[in-house]
Amino acid sequence: MKDVVLTGDRPTGPLHLGHYFGSLANRVELQDIHPMYVLIADYQVITDRDLPGHIQRNITELLLDYLAVGLDPAKVTIFRHSAIPELNQLLLPFLSLVSVAELQRNPTVKDEIAHSSQRAVSGLMFTYPVHQAADILFCKGTLVPVGKDQLPHVEMTRLVARRFNERYGEVFPVPEVMMGEQPLLRGLDGGKMSKSRGNAITLSATEDETAALIRRARTDSDRLITFDEEHRPEVANLLTLAALCLGRSPQDLAEEIGYGGAAALKRLVTEAVNEFLRPIRKRRKEHAEQDVRQILAEGNERARERAVTTLDEVRAAMGF
Amino acid sequence: MKDVVLTGDRPTGPLHLGHYFGSLANRVELQDIHPMYVLIADYQVITDRDLPGHIQRNITELLLDYLAVGLDPAKVTIFRHSAIPELNQLLLPFLSLVSVAELQRNPTVKDEIAHSSQRAVSGLMFTYPVHQAADILFCKGTLVPVGKDQLPHVEMTRLVARRFNERYGEVFPVPEVMMGEQPLLRGLDGGKMSKSRGNAITLSATEDETAALIRRARTDSDRLITFDEEHRPEVANLLTLAALCLGRSPQDLAEEIGYGGAAALKRLVTEAVNEFLRPIRKRRKEHAEQDVRQILAEGNERARERAVTTLDEVRAAMGF
Repeated sequence: MKDVVLTGDRPTGPLHLGHYFGSLANRVELQDIHPMYVLIADYQVITDRDLPGHIQRNITELLLDYLAVGLDPAKVTIFRHSAIPELNQLLLPFLSLVSVAELQRNPTVKDEIAHSSQRAVSGLMFTYPVHQAADILFCKGTLVPVGKDQLPHVEMTRLVARRFNERYGEVFPVPEVMMGEQPLLRGLDGGKMSKSRGNAITLSATEDETAALIRRARTDSDRLITFDEEHRPEVANLLTLAALCLGRSPQDLAEEIGYGGAAALKRLVTEAVNEFLRPIRKRRKEHAEQDVRQILAEGNERARERAVTTLDEVRAAMGF
Repeated sequence: MKDVVLTGDRPTGPLHLGHYFGSLANRVELQDIHPMYVLIADYQVITDRDLPGHIQRNITELLLDYLAVGLDPAKVTIFRHSAIPELNQLLLPFLSLVSVAELQRNPTVKDEIAHSSQRAVSGLMFTYPVHQAADILFCKGTLVPVGKDQLPHVEMTRLVARRFNERYGEVFPVPEVMMGEQPLLRGLDGGKMSKSRGNAITLSATEDETAALIRRARTDSDRLITFDEEHRPEVANLLTLAALCLGRSPQDLAEEIGYGGAAALKRLVTEAVNEFLRPIRKRRKEHAEQDVRQILAEGNERARERAVTTLDEVRAAMGF
């Protein structure tokens, strides 16, 4: 059976190099091998307060990021979660297959609960793993590229698929996860890379913004640049970033810089990143001048056709 | 503002006289006064095990019961829950407005949990009050005829409507409940009237089946028939049933029977019920000979148009 890939993002802000090397590059490769659906999980951001006003803009920016890195709408179905009622309807039969105890045990939900600034956990967040099952199974996804924190969610999807098939007959494939092998890229301050921390180079940043960000990056005072992840994590991280952009090894780059110190390191990283992002930025600019809404409308339509077919199969299997 | 009535049933089996006097008669009156939506809550029966196979037949029977008692598809929109993806999608934004703690506190859900034969409570049952909010609000229902056990569910709907309006601007009316004033009709064995106990006269029962059921009804050996709900609940219940069918008072009927004993009482009840059900059975038979699927298809279409409009408003209000 041919694999179907399901992947996606919450529209919470511009994508950065961490996203690029962590998942986008992989998607660009996969789009030539498998049918792929890329979901813009807009309902998932309403669990965060105050975001709704920016959703529309965030979605446009996300779409531009996708197009900029080379996702091709002719190969990939990019769509908005909220535009596909038949996908969302799957939530109801799927919720019947999962117990409250199982929802409570889900470690990612537990974690979200612990880190949530909300006074109480919403029903939407609580049932999130089941929404994700609908997101993956509506297109009969078989391959889900994930980060480690997403593993339990995909386990829930596998559970839902197995239970549905057992109870109503074979309708869904049981999807497999696909773990990334990319090295972890940290933010320029050594912390987790995140737009809200201001330590990430976004794909939409200008060359000057990029240079300024790297100039402020944390390093150390040792003039001899070495790749030592344990003792010099910030320097190692900058070397890794440049290495990913240049397709070289970080050790090799360290040797090349030698006694150049932080200044030479940052110069090299800035050039490598800006060089790397140049074609991406160019494509982004070209697309930004066009109306990308049509691209999303077409993706929504294709996804919806798929969802209608799946929901019909589900209804038939359930004897509806 | 004109009221919009939302009401409905789970397709768990044929309707009986308890349903008729408890809610159907009221609906038949309301259909001439207000726009009304009657929901066949098919997704709600998948919380019960083993029912799916009968759903299709149950839905046809339910529809025939509706038509038999005089619900007029030209006035009332009768539709299947599962046929309206845009209604079901409302579940997602609504779930974001309700906390897990609030779901846990809902007394009807608590009760369902306590009485459930399932080993664990499903996510579908747990989130049921929010589904009901979607059922009521998709058509901007303002008036919900309910039994007492449904009150907390409607409270959840009111909460969802108020919170949505506060957060995203005025979209939904806050619906009011409409409590029935009918006397409680018990089963022929004195217990709660329920098809599964075999103590209920269904609208689709034949005259002979009705007579046999009443013949087996529990009474007492006192030959003087009196209407005494406290000390002679079974006799009082039979008198109430006949009184409802005849539009007379149970006291009056008791007096008429006098020393006739249980035999005379049962004869009177049987005649009253069969007489009362005659036109209903006639209409049921006529409809059963036609294809009622078209009636449901038209109701689904009307309900779906309504749901599409509401979902569009919701998306716009949320800035989607």
